[in-house]
Amino acid sequence: MSTNKQDEKIKLVKDLLKSLKEVGDVAELKKKFKDVIASVSPSEIVAIEQQLVREGVAITDILKLCDLHVELFKEYLQPRVLEGVPEGHPLDLLMRENIYILKVSESLSLYASTLKMVEDVEQMRKYLDGLVGMLRELRNVRLHYRKIQMLIFPYLERRGITTVPRVLWGREDRALTMLRQTLELVERLGSSESLDVGRVGEVATKAVELAKEFSELVFRENKILFPATWALFSEGEWVAISEIADEIGWLVDVGERRWRPNAKPVLPYELEVRISDSDIGKLPPEFRTTALAGGLEPDTYKIASEGDLNLGTGFLSPEEVKAVFRSLPLEITYANLDDRVKFFSESSIFKGFVRTKTIIGRKVEYCHPPRLEAFVMQNVKSVKNGEAPYKEYWTRIGGKIVRVLIAPVKGEDGKLLGVLEVVEDMTEIINKAEEIKKKIVVL
Amino acid sequence: MSTNKQDEKIKLVKDLLKSLKEVGDVAELKKKFKDVIASVSPSEIVAIEQQLVREGVAITDILKLCDLHVELFKEYLQPRVLEGVPEGHPLDLLMRENIYILKVSESLSLYASTLKMVEDVEQMRKYLDGLVGMLRELRNVRLHYRKIQMLIFPYLERRGITTVPRVLWGREDRALTMLRQTLELVERLGSSESLDVGRVGEVATKAVELAKEFSELVFRENKILFPATWALFSEGEWVAISEIADEIGWLVDVGERRWRPNAKPVLPYELEVRISDSDIGKLPPEFRTTALAGGLEPDTYKIASEGDLNLGTGFLSPEEVKAVFRSLPLEITYANLDDRVKFFSESSIFKGFVRTKTIIGRKVEYCHPPRLEAFVMQNVKSVKNGEAPYKEYWTRIGGKIVRVLIAPVKGEDGKLLGVLEVVEDMTEIINKAEEIKKKIVVL
Repeated sequence: MSTNKQDEKIKLVKDLLKSLKEVGDVAELKKKFKDVIASVSPSEIVAIEQQLVREGVAITDILKLCDLHVELFKEYLQPRVLEGVPEGHPLDLLMRENIYILKVSESLSLYASTLKMVEDVEQMRKYLDGLVGMLRELRNVRLHYRKIQMLIFPYLERRGITTVPRVLWGREDRALTMLRQTLELVERLGSSESLDVGRVGEVATKAVELAKEFSELVFRENKILFPATWALFSEGEWVAISEIADEIGWLVDVGERRWRPNAKPVLPYELEVRISDSDIGKLPPEFRTTALAGGLEPDTYKIASEGDLNLGTGFLSPEEVKAVFRSLPLEITYANLDDRVKFFSESSIFKGFVRTKTIIGRKVEYCHPPRLEAFVMQNVKSVKNGEAPYKEYWTRIGGKIVRVLIAPVKGEDGKLLGVLEVVEDMTEIINKAEEIKKKIVVL
Repeated sequence: MSTNKQDEKIKLVKDLLKSLKEVGDVAELKKKFKDVIASVSPSEIVAIEQQLVREGVAITDILKLCDLHVELFKEYLQPRVLEGVPEGHPLDLLMRENIYILKVSESLSLYASTLKMVEDVEQMRKYLDGLVGMLRELRNVRLHYRKIQMLIFPYLERRGITTVPRVLWGREDRALTMLRQTLELVERLGSSESLDVGRVGEVATKAVELAKEFSELVFRENKILFPATWALFSEGEWVAISEIADEIGWLVDVGERRWRPNAKPVLPYELEVRISDSDIGKLPPEFRTTALAGGLEPDTYKIASEGDLNLGTGFLSPEEVKAVFRSLPLEITYANLDDRVKFFSESSIFKGFVRTKTIIGRKVEYCHPPRLEAFVMQNVKSVKNGEAPYKEYWTRIGGKIVRVLIAPVKGEDGKLLGVLEVVEDMTEIINKAEEIKKKIVVL
């Protein structure tokens, strides 16, 4: 970019900022300065912003520019094939989340590059604070990638498209790991009274990289992943994605939903679909190349066997129900609303109180010595009444330190079904708490 | 007892002891000295034993006398109605356990009363050691009462006999609580270098009481409880009791079983039985009075509902299975042998890793970023191979310290069915280990 041309652009941007301060309404400015902003390419924006900082323009004003810039960028962000995505559709919301991610990334980048320029320690602190604020805000984006990884990818995998999700998850993971490391670096900065300028520079460099990583992810999703899913997924799949995504939560305000699907939710395991040639034609070229490399053999695995219970969150055969209870590190005794023992489990990892099949159907009050009857029944009663979400007490069994929980058992509608006693050996954890703290790894 | 008569008896007992040393075979002596021993009443035995100690007879020799005494006492211990109980029948074994309990109690009593007599500190220590040994041995008797409380009582309760079990359990509990307290008293003795004579006396007094309590229980069971159960319980009930009692374990060597029942095991909840008038006639009078006071309304409660799963250790409806998993303080994810996610649970007490219905049927390796794929699959593999009973690691979720277990899931036949991930929040326990230690109560 020639200096002349850049000077010209800087002047234009300054005018824009001035108007932004006066007008305040981004939509109106968008119309007015459309050509100006559109002429500033992503690669130029950082240089111009830095120049503005050098000239003394307040960084908060420049951040407004970011908003505007991203707003105008939308057209590029949202490829034409996705224009038909209705408001409130999961793809619409995911793309809106990407705008949020892009804004935070741009702000982060601006703070970081400014931080690299300044030498005054006071100013350094100021920009560092801004940078850290953006890093912290970026942590929220895990919510976005969780939806991609857990809701979008499984439907691709089911179609035999496994490389694209693995590669993308790898990049997302790299970006999020880098974010964590940068925040750890910041943590170490904060603990010392005087700023270590070298370290600050390191943080700034990391932050610039990080911003680039996330922008890159935004573009990959919007230009490649989302168009592919839009071409491939059925309405029922989007309904399932939408329902679960709402439970996970969104980074953006969902607002009014224009999308009114009629299909029933379809989960990946219910899907048996081979990608047709015409579908392949609709895929973005980058996606097509990677996806087809895997051979596109659809996954037709049947997860439920005959006789399995459908438990809502999966399937278990009666044998598996029994076996799963045996594999738990705790033992339970369940009494129904009539205070009758209806079920107990025995763990192969830990032996708690002895219970025998002869207590099935027994009144709970008769399961303890008379001395403890009132205590036990009071606990049961207060849990049944909802006076306590659960009761906890600590005792010993043999040489072991054991936690006993008394918890209510409720149906999906919240209706009380009974009361559960949960007994778990915590000896090792209690006695080796400090050692365990040292064993913690963040994976 | 006149002094003359007592002197005579003491002489006889001394002769007996001498012979015991020479002959060694209790059975033979039993024949020879039957009349001598039978003439010594339970109330005289303590006085005679103390006299022997005073005269310098070694306490170990006197303990042999206890054995012999109990042996001869058997006839009194085992009422005529129980003569037909076959060897190896649960009642036979329970009565043999009672002989064991009686022997330990008598020895305890002997040590305690001797301890009260001696003044020499060295001797005191010696008898105290003997006493403590017996107290420790007495702790084993919990195994006996557990079988009474969990295997015998439920069948009585089902018949509407509830007072007898409650009263007996109350006494058993009192004796065992007293035992615990006495042992705690002893613990405090041991910590000081010089013996606190007053405290030793206190322990001795407690020990005498304790021995009396347990002897009392033995007689109540043998004379009242056991004859009643023998009159009332069907073979199928005894089969169930026998099977489970074998799992709990016995205080005595079971030896060869002469008892060969043909009936199928019958559990209390399967029982619907009203005590007939002719049955009532067969009950020991003491039992009859207490039992009839309750009105004898049989318990006909049906524990299983239609559609319930029979899980071996009780019944759960599919709704209850789901609800119980929600009430656990942990969350699980289960993958089958094909490494496919088949089920996950969500706890209402603790939220761990986010899992969604879209992962049902998903390959386990695709549930994590590529960076962790090898780590996860290595854990799964080593658990499947049986290289480790389970794998444990510690990590963070948000601000929480979380334990992750990877455990094999096995059928009753030991066949591997799949692998379980168990995620549990241990933050409070790790951070408040010392406080929790103070909260422990032995109930």
